[in-house]
Amino acid sequence: MDNRQLIVEKVAQATAILQEVGVDVWLTFVRETTLSPDPTLELIAGVDVTWQSAFILSRDGRHTAIVGRYDTENVAQLGVYHQIVGYDEGIAQPLQEALARLNPATIAINYSTNDVAADGLSHGLYLALQQHLAGTPFGERLVSAEKLVAALRGRKSAAEVERVRTAVATTLQLFDEVEAFVRPGMTQRQIADFVRRRIDEMGLGYAWPKPFNPIVTCGPESAVGHAAPGDVALQKGHLLHMDLGVKQNDYCSDLQRMWYVLDDGETQAPPDVQRTFDVVYGAIKAGEAALKPGTPGWRVDEAARDFIVDNGFPEYKHAFGHLLGRVAHDGATVLGPRWERYAGICEMPVEVGNIFTLELHVVVPNRGIMSLEEDVLVTEDGVEYLGRPQTAVRIIDSHSR
Amino acid sequence: MDNRQLIVEKVAQATAILQEVGVDVWLTFVRETTLSPDPTLELIAGVDVTWQSAFILSRDGRHTAIVGRYDTENVAQLGVYHQIVGYDEGIAQPLQEALARLNPATIAINYSTNDVAADGLSHGLYLALQQHLAGTPFGERLVSAEKLVAALRGRKSAAEVERVRTAVATTLQLFDEVEAFVRPGMTQRQIADFVRRRIDEMGLGYAWPKPFNPIVTCGPESAVGHAAPGDVALQKGHLLHMDLGVKQNDYCSDLQRMWYVLDDGETQAPPDVQRTFDVVYGAIKAGEAALKPGTPGWRVDEAARDFIVDNGFPEYKHAFGHLLGRVAHDGATVLGPRWERYAGICEMPVEVGNIFTLELHVVVPNRGIMSLEEDVLVTEDGVEYLGRPQTAVRIIDSHSR
Repeated sequence: MDNRQLIVEKVAQATAILQEVGVDVWLTFVRETTLSPDPTLELIAGVDVTWQSAFILSRDGRHTAIVGRYDTENVAQLGVYHQIVGYDEGIAQPLQEALARLNPATIAINYSTNDVAADGLSHGLYLALQQHLAGTPFGERLVSAEKLVAALRGRKSAAEVERVRTAVATTLQLFDEVEAFVRPGMTQRQIADFVRRRIDEMGLGYAWPKPFNPIVTCGPESAVGHAAPGDVALQKGHLLHMDLGVKQNDYCSDLQRMWYVLDDGETQAPPDVQRTFDVVYGAIKAGEAALKPGTPGWRVDEAARDFIVDNGFPEYKHAFGHLLGRVAHDGATVLGPRWERYAGICEMPVEVGNIFTLELHVVVPNRGIMSLEEDVLVTEDGVEYLGRPQTAVRIIDSHSR
Repeated sequence: MDNRQLIVEKVAQATAILQEVGVDVWLTFVRETTLSPDPTLELIAGVDVTWQSAFILSRDGRHTAIVGRYDTENVAQLGVYHQIVGYDEGIAQPLQEALARLNPATIAINYSTNDVAADGLSHGLYLALQQHLAGTPFGERLVSAEKLVAALRGRKSAAEVERVRTAVATTLQLFDEVEAFVRPGMTQRQIADFVRRRIDEMGLGYAWPKPFNPIVTCGPESAVGHAAPGDVALQKGHLLHMDLGVKQNDYCSDLQRMWYVLDDGETQAPPDVQRTFDVVYGAIKAGEAALKPGTPGWRVDEAARDFIVDNGFPEYKHAFGHLLGRVAHDGATVLGPRWERYAGICEMPVEVGNIFTLELHVVVPNRGIMSLEEDVLVTEDGVEYLGRPQTAVRIIDSHSR
């Protein structure tokens, strides 16, 4: 399915969501989108525009775009906007006219305190919009589009799911290549460079910026989290862990895998490593069991978090999962605890068609970071893994080389 | 100069601008910056962050960053933030504490109705910031940072100028390659694909999105402006025009060149083409003569626009020039007419260190689009071209092949 078809599919979905939610008009108001992108625009138009532009989706299906004169042709080629207005000097008048024709009781615009994907409208542009609507009744009718964005972005279409599935398959292949490549003595940087070289050779993109993708940790000295790979070398008896996401055909993967490097005389992971793996894996499975349509995100996190704590490990200081799609953190519902920074978005219910990561880590003393992350699709019945999960400690055996 | 050094240079410049403008604190407030980037962050930090984060520049030089725990190490590596706070659950408390220590009378935040580069704060994040500051005096002290952003982004440092100069040199080389490659019968698409293949081979980026870069027009049938290259073929007696910008080492070029395809029996451009070139070139020179520090942008546009109109051609429906830097439309001051969509930004004065495009087009009946664009640096005395300008009609002579 080409990109234009994907836009057609998502705009049809948006029209249905407007009817479901009972909002008359959804106004995506943008300018200079290469410098200041609105995450919603890529779903409903997939083009960039230069001057202030309004993409107006209506619940009755009459969609309108008001753009600078030089951008009209690109928007027309999409075939989803029935009326396209190209202006020269200013957008205020054509915008007022378009809204007057539709006379909506509610106009949803893209702002949200909690959901970054629904917060594409800049504050200055919000003020400009209020100026454009001065003297009309429409300034009073603006509401947040956060529910619309969450539904449109969160409920993946079949074509979107297939694209994520492909990115996941590619990533699992890269992990296999890493396992064949790695040996003790290599640094985090060498291992990360190998992966990046392969990604570049394959013509793929990165699910998050290249300097921090993949994240590679080797042994107990590696920092946890979003830091760039450094000069720590992998040693026998230590853990290797990688957090990797590629972007393929505009959709992302986000997966973590871990390996144990056999020490001299060992033929399998020692008990401390094995037991920690079992608990981390068990927590993923506990979260998976709680991941059902209608469940608020924080309850899924709680299932995994309680499993970790009940087994005597410290809580992880992040969310158990996030949505995945066009970007690694694909907005809206988060499977996270009820902390200030997850306010609102951890209360949102899981929906059919959501693609979530399931992830958590604990530190194994003197060994390194034990961390797993899977990508799963929420279905009517529960969960479908979008690629083979890690179910056992993966081993790097330097002796057999 | 590496990227970290560039950040050090720009943060020092920002501190001086705070003193110059008389603002105490400049707060860049962001989250999930890969999905929702603030153009200012790349100037003062050059890292991405995940959770709500505050980058606080103080006029006394005591700079503070408050970021999620997992992002602290990347920020520390910059070496420009003296205090770095990593938080787990929420930013409100550490943010209030940091502001209480500084007790600023004014806090500039990144919003602007007119300047997209100064408008990186989303509306939802603005509302979240107001919530975080509730119960403190600081919510009342927020002002627009647009003057700060315009100065910091607009006044290019020596290292930034060198990067643009390099991108311009590369682009001029690509135009030479185009001239050697093109012959009548080739379509816009074939010519654009040639350029994109070369850009990809050279490992360069695009100053604006690849589907619309380069813009190629062939003869009178081509649409003007931002449209993607299509299937119109180049013919003898027609004009070829290309608008191309590359991104090299994070900085952009944005140039236009034009060629005339000799018709049978011709040895030079015919009078209608030559006369139109002379007027377009003359308008560029008229604008250049008006481009001096302290002049408001609209006066520079007026000089070029009047020249065109005085010579009997219709006004171009766009601005004569825009700033150029990390992106093709690098925010702030525009050399544009006093139309609604240039409100505010066309009143801003030209400053030493600004890099502007100078560009305009007219249509030559039955021939195509005559358009030129140059990239120039504003100096104390006037203007320095960052690459050899086009001063004559370039010729494609299919007979000599």
